[in-house]
Amino acid sequence: SEPDMGFIPPGTVDLLRRALAEDLAAAGDITTDAVVPAGVRMQATLMTREQGTVAGLEASLRVFTLLDTDVTITTRVDEGAAVQAGTALASLEGPAAALLAGERTSLNLLCHLSGIATATTAAVAAVEGTGATVADTRKTTPGLRALEKMAVRLGGGRNHRFGLYDAVLIKDNHLALVGTVGAAVRRARDRVGHMVKIEVEVETLDALQEALDAGVDAVLLDNMSPPLLREAVRLVDGRCVTESSGSITLDTIRAVARTGVDVVSLGWITHSAPALDIALDAG
Amino acid sequence: SEPDMGFIPPGTVDLLRRALAEDLAAAGDITTDAVVPAGVRMQATLMTREQGTVAGLEASLRVFTLLDTDVTITTRVDEGAAVQAGTALASLEGPAAALLAGERTSLNLLCHLSGIATATTAAVAAVEGTGATVADTRKTTPGLRALEKMAVRLGGGRNHRFGLYDAVLIKDNHLALVGTVGAAVRRARDRVGHMVKIEVEVETLDALQEALDAGVDAVLLDNMSPPLLREAVRLVDGRCVTESSGSITLDTIRAVARTGVDVVSLGWITHSAPALDIALDAG
Amino acid sequence: SEPDMGFIPPGTVDLLRRALAEDLAAAGDITTDAVVPAGVRMQATLMTREQGTVAGLEASLRVFTLLDTDVTITTRVDEGAAVQAGTALASLEGPAAALLAGERTSLNLLCHLSGIATATTAAVAAVEGTGATVADTRKTTPGLRALEKMAVRLGGGRNHRFGLYDAVLIKDNHLALVGTVGAAVRRARDRVGHMVKIEVEVETLDALQEALDAGVDAVLLDNMSPPLLREAVRLVDGRCVTESSGSITLDTIRAVARTGVDVVSLGWITHSAPALDIALDAG
Amino acid sequence: SEPDMGFIPPGTVDLLRRALAEDLAAAGDITTDAVVPAGVRMQATLMTREQGTVAGLEASLRVFTLLDTDVTITTRVDEGAAVQAGTALASLEGPAAALLAGERTSLNLLCHLSGIATATTAAVAAVEGTGATVADTRKTTPGLRALEKMAVRLGGGRNHRFGLYDAVLIKDNHLALVGTVGAAVRRARDRVGHMVKIEVEVETLDALQEALDAGVDAVLLDNMSPPLLREAVRLVDGRCVTESSGSITLDTIRAVARTGVDVVSLGWITHSAPALDIALDAG
Amino acid sequence: SEPDMGFIPPGTVDLLRRALAEDLAAAGDITTDAVVPAGVRMQATLMTREQGTVAGLEASLRVFTLLDTDVTITTRVDEGAAVQAGTALASLEGPAAALLAGERTSLNLLCHLSGIATATTAAVAAVEGTGATVADTRKTTPGLRALEKMAVRLGGGRNHRFGLYDAVLIKDNHLALVGTVGAAVRRARDRVGHMVKIEVEVETLDALQEALDAGVDAVLLDNMSPPLLREAVRLVDGRCVTESSGSITLDTIRAVARTGVDVVSLGWITHSAPALDIALDAG
Amino acid sequence: SEPDMGFIPPGTVDLLRRALAEDLAAAGDITTDAVVPAGVRMQATLMTREQGTVAGLEASLRVFTLLDTDVTITTRVDEGAAVQAGTALASLEGPAAALLAGERTSLNLLCHLSGIATATTAAVAAVEGTGATVADTRKTTPGLRALEKMAVRLGGGRNHRFGLYDAVLIKDNHLALVGTVGAAVRRARDRVGHMVKIEVEVETLDALQEALDAGVDAVLLDNMSPPLLREAVRLVDGRCVTESSGSITLDTIRAVARTGVDVVSLGWITHSAPALDIALDAG
Repeated sequence: SEPDMGFIPPGTVDLLRRALAEDLAAAGDITTDAVVPAGVRMQATLMTREQGTVAGLEASLRVFTLLDTDVTITTRVDEGAAVQAGTALASLEGPAAALLAGERTSLNLLCHLSGIATATTAAVAAVEGTGATVADTRKTTPGLRALEKMAVRLGGGRNHRFGLYDAVLIKDNHLALVGTVGAAVRRARDRVGHMVKIEVEVETLDALQEALDAGVDAVLLDNMSPPLLREAVRLVDGRCVTESSGSITLDTIRAVARTGVDVVSLGWITHSAPALDIALDAG
Repeated sequence: SEPDMGFIPPGTVDLLRRALAEDLAAAGDITTDAVVPAGVRMQATLMTREQGTVAGLEASLRVFTLLDTDVTITTRVDEGAAVQAGTALASLEGPAAALLAGERTSLNLLCHLSGIATATTAAVAAVEGTGATVADTRKTTPGLRALEKMAVRLGGGRNHRFGLYDAVLIKDNHLALVGTVGAAVRRARDRVGHMVKIEVEVETLDALQEALDAGVDAVLLDNMSPPLLREAVRLVDGRCVTESSGSITLDTIRAVARTGVDVVSLGWITHSAPALDIALDAG
Repeated sequence: SEPDMGFIPPGTVDLLRRALAEDLAAAGDITTDAVVPAGVRMQATLMTREQGTVAGLEASLRVFTLLDTDVTITTRVDEGAAVQAGTALASLEGPAAALLAGERTSLNLLCHLSGIATATTAAVAAVEGTGATVADTRKTTPGLRALEKMAVRLGGGRNHRFGLYDAVLIKDNHLALVGTVGAAVRRARDRVGHMVKIEVEVETLDALQEALDAGVDAVLLDNMSPPLLREAVRLVDGRCVTESSGSITLDTIRAVARTGVDVVSLGWITHSAPALDIALDAG
Repeated sequence: SEPDMGFIPPGTVDLLRRALAEDLAAAGDITTDAVVPAGVRMQATLMTREQGTVAGLEASLRVFTLLDTDVTITTRVDEGAAVQAGTALASLEGPAAALLAGERTSLNLLCHLSGIATATTAAVAAVEGTGATVADTRKTTPGLRALEKMAVRLGGGRNHRFGLYDAVLIKDNHLALVGTVGAAVRRARDRVGHMVKIEVEVETLDALQEALDAGVDAVLLDNMSPPLLREAVRLVDGRCVTESSGSITLDTIRAVARTGVDVVSLGWITHSAPALDIALDAG
Repeated sequence: SEPDMGFIPPGTVDLLRRALAEDLAAAGDITTDAVVPAGVRMQATLMTREQGTVAGLEASLRVFTLLDTDVTITTRVDEGAAVQAGTALASLEGPAAALLAGERTSLNLLCHLSGIATATTAAVAAVEGTGATVADTRKTTPGLRALEKMAVRLGGGRNHRFGLYDAVLIKDNHLALVGTVGAAVRRARDRVGHMVKIEVEVETLDALQEALDAGVDAVLLDNMSPPLLREAVRLVDGRCVTESSGSITLDTIRAVARTGVDVVSLGWITHSAPALDIALDAG
Repeated sequence: SEPDMGFIPPGTVDLLRRALAEDLAAAGDITTDAVVPAGVRMQATLMTREQGTVAGLEASLRVFTLLDTDVTITTRVDEGAAVQAGTALASLEGPAAALLAGERTSLNLLCHLSGIATATTAAVAAVEGTGATVADTRKTTPGLRALEKMAVRLGGGRNHRFGLYDAVLIKDNHLALVGTVGAAVRRARDRVGHMVKIEVEVETLDALQEALDAGVDAVLLDNMSPPLLREAVRLVDGRCVTESSGSITLDTIRAVARTGVDVVSLGWITHSAPALDIALDAG
């Protein structure tokens, strides 16, 4: 179904300006300035070279209108579209200087985000019918979190926390410092506002029981085998959200999802997804 | 040999601040604030979970001292080191709040850059003894170019252009607009300063001859087969730098390098290298 | 009890720099430059002129060390302290130029935040023993939200959402566009991640029942009279958090809190709290 | 009479962007994204809930067009208008996502500035016919000085110094460091340019005489009783501007103004004015 | 006498960072990185190559400590010093990479500001004994106004307005729009605060009389011949400040100053002063 | 011939905003606000007062549209045009407030850049027919390098390096640290990418021979007399680019150029060119 969301997260235009500045510095596009006569216009088409899920089309195309408002863009597919190799994603017409100067910056973003969406789509397909959802993590590229999390949504995944600020997740390092799971959860409950969810990482069923007793909202079942996950899900019995995480690959995800966990979270869909091959062809 | 270079490119601290802002927003690390008592300190070790080449150690560790100058860091390996799984890269001691708040931001950068260095190392190893060097491209992640190009150097590669501003590279899209290779090169030579190199993309030996006649500094031999590359290298005969590019993988790179080209440039070492698995272990 | 939290939220230093820039512009402190000989040092004490709760001490004192690292500061009370008129909050010693240039900027922040903490303290005292907590709203001063929400915590209150991004709150304007409470809640549940809480504003018991049926995490009982609130609390029966809001003053808050609601949220503690009178006295 | 001035001081748009960033962070308006279908439009009216003076209408409405240029705004009253409860200030039509995302940020600014204008209006009314003008101080909210001083003008007041940079004001802390009033004024006169006014704070008639002898442009008569003010005004006899300041309330301001001072300056009109109640009603 | 002022105006560090970014971009100092072994240190001396007045020493030397806090700097002369060719201004010791990377950026600022101070010194010397002061204008280099105005002060000049914001100056273009000098001055007086001075440009004695009648603080006598200036000064008779401006050179300035005007303002001391030749010599 | 380049280098709009902020600060144009009635419009013409080369027309005129998009601008000459005194460069029409507020900021940039272009034009004319080109240096004004280098191009000159990042230039300070010219050049060649040119500063023919043997791309012949330059050019014999630099004036440049060097580089065209006199006349 069509996603109801804006496609350019807050802060995107600043990122695009920084990315353009990386490519242009002070001298700008000295090749085009030297070689292409002023005023020349060109047409170009954004084409996929392989199959995948498109993400970041609107954001990446903003590169061109930031360079020159005289560029005209017609998108040919929707954000989140599943496309084959050789699909035209968008047509561009405008001053050659703007199209040539923006090409690489625009593609770098689009290929990266579409790579993430494509990886997410594969993971989502792998758990189809199990009732589990696929979630991302905070393992994102510095400066790109909002866009990468958007790409995950476009690939059919859900977003975990956006950062340290929007939910409590008590992990092993916290527990090492503050003692028991139960005490940590209660301490958190006493201090945060009523709109903040609290999740705790547990590695044993005992710790899980303690978390449930403390009234946690979700549990992160870290690196548990499918049989142990199944036991954990049974113990929880709907009293909180169950999330499985840790070394889950495309090969193992379905077995994990079939244990009955609510959420499977994956770092690699954001930190290790290869770029999707997309090019800007003249004409 | 040990590289003589600064390990934090200009602009890195701004990037780290933005990355921290992504993770902290306005409320900060609400888990640690709620759960860990004020003033608690901790020790932690940065450990590899798999084999690879380390890059971005200094940059990523700056995250912690940006959060709190009271964090003490001892690095255990040099930038660019080839390491096994289970290697301690650095030891940290300081306020738990700073170590916990900076952990993910620091690791996100370190794992990403080390992934790039590791991929580069593999490519460099594959061409060993051929005389060819491995170069990167402008296919980098928006906002991270300087760091990613540093990671390529640390992996043993060389840097191609940093952007559109520091060298002329006349590509097919330019040629479509301005006519012949020779005319384009001469037009560039007439306009840029004496410290700017000029490279042109050629797909045939005729175009190559034209480029040589125009006195080009380098030629980009795009998507040529090894036999054709060999002919091209013979035709150039040392008059300019030869660079091969396009769809070159770890499997095919040695055959390309053995044609005698000076440079093999690879997009995937920056845009599709998986993150290297590194963690911050308490204690 | 002593609060476990950092006292300078992310972004505070940037705010202080902007505030100093407002006061110094390009010419700087032309009075001190003209009148006070270079090198003169001075001592000063931050003194309350009226009773209240202190908030923002660390943040506001950073103004001076931003101007000159040679300023020495000794704080005399803790953040969140309840103080009488005539209490010394901190002693300062350093270059007169820095103390004089930073005085107004520092006090403007400290008096504002302490005013908010003082107002919050009054509200918290008014509900003491009822079991209800006092929460803030998003009705904050542009650019100061993180600090104002910190002041609320220091005054004994809890934080509601920090923004539109960290929790779902479905209000009358949303409902006018999308139909029933139940449909809206279910639509939200289907789309947000598992760590996001969902609250809905309800004005009738019917709407409240619908929200409960849809599995909402919290309900905002808007502008309900105490008798109606009491009925609502009975209907909810612990199945979600209950929050009362709308035109609640210091005079009416206790009656509201005694209805059994979990949270009373107040806009005026941030948008209309008068500044607490604090001055910097030489010597 | 209608004021001749721009209504958005330099720097306002940056402030609005920061305020929006506070409310949207990276994830944006997750409620609207989840609940309101894409493309839905809405109408809304900005309505006063109580009587007062409007200030910041243009600045606060810019929030909406910053979010989406497709929002249409029709203002119904002028900046500085005295309005009753229930007055429509402006009508808005546009994408629901923009109106809902901007509502709180816009209102936070408008209610705050209108509160200041309303407080100023009350003070100006209280001195009507005395010949005195009402001036603000540097006791403003960090980051909002230009807008708050604009609100003071719209409420009928005049602006004192904008900062430390645009006029010399020698206060008690300076005098403690440099000796006599006369020496300080002469020292300032020798060093600043010919377009800078010099004011000195005096607490006695002797100090006042010294200031007059040194050729000061204005005197700040600090915390003087009305009888003493009257003597001071007689002594000055038009040779410089007289300003009264310190603990002046709405109850005492008229008595102060009737002493013949030229200016009465008030800190509370900016630092403690309660917000004016204004809402955005759908439809 | 030694000037009592800070030598780094607000905003200077940001300017230095931007200037460094201009010189370093993303790749940094590739010559030093490639040629100078890591860890090498060097000594260097800042030497004048010609006679002049030094300005901006502290600001320009901050470049080096911004690059590396390990650089040690010993200044040998005071800001504003009159120096001969071959004078050592400062000694530096530190990492060669920092000294080499900062050299050009530091010198560019120092030579520019010292050129302005040197030009100002010449103008001040030319009016010595006449009672007139030399003032600058707003004809400054974009981004450098505060530093250039500091250089004028260090050269013995006074500062005119810092911008459009700190004083009223009614010029011919205003008068063309609003009518008579008297009306314009009165209109300004009615609207600005009591700490703002008002100057008006006049070209005739009639206009001058009108300005005096309206109670102006200063008059700008634009492009008047010395005889006419003398008449104007006589007409003013001490009732306001007199300023002469327009096409005044080092050759004509003394004749202008001897007419009795209070201030002679000069654009060329900021917009056309040649750089003072200063170099950084190793050793 | 007409130059093929964009006339607003990357980063220019940020510079213009900073320059406007210098002139407007928080209070804005208080003269126009006080004196000119709201809504008044005006026409104005940008006129040269002396002969020269125009540079920065597009960049400086952007000041006005940044202030108000309702300003209409018609340029009357091209960038780089050689113009006489009394030439209309552009006509403006729009709100008087915008034209008056932007006048000085716009002119400050235009006069400065046109001064540089005019100085460059004179140098280029002086070497006409010799085959040498005129190049700039890194001796530019902090914050203005890209614009100043554009002005050099518009005056007929060529750009040397834009910074430390885009080419290698080994100078005396490097050689003092690392030994021989040959070793330094080889070290650089081994480390930089294939698109980076390497130049070395030489002061003797022996050093020159060493540089040639090491395969340098260009040599900087520093402070050599014309006879020595002639010998150097003969020795080089086309094997690399020859550049002469150091104390070359308009009087000596032709003699230098006639020695056969390829490039003559001049610091004074950027650091000491007097501003070109241009004004904005009403009407």
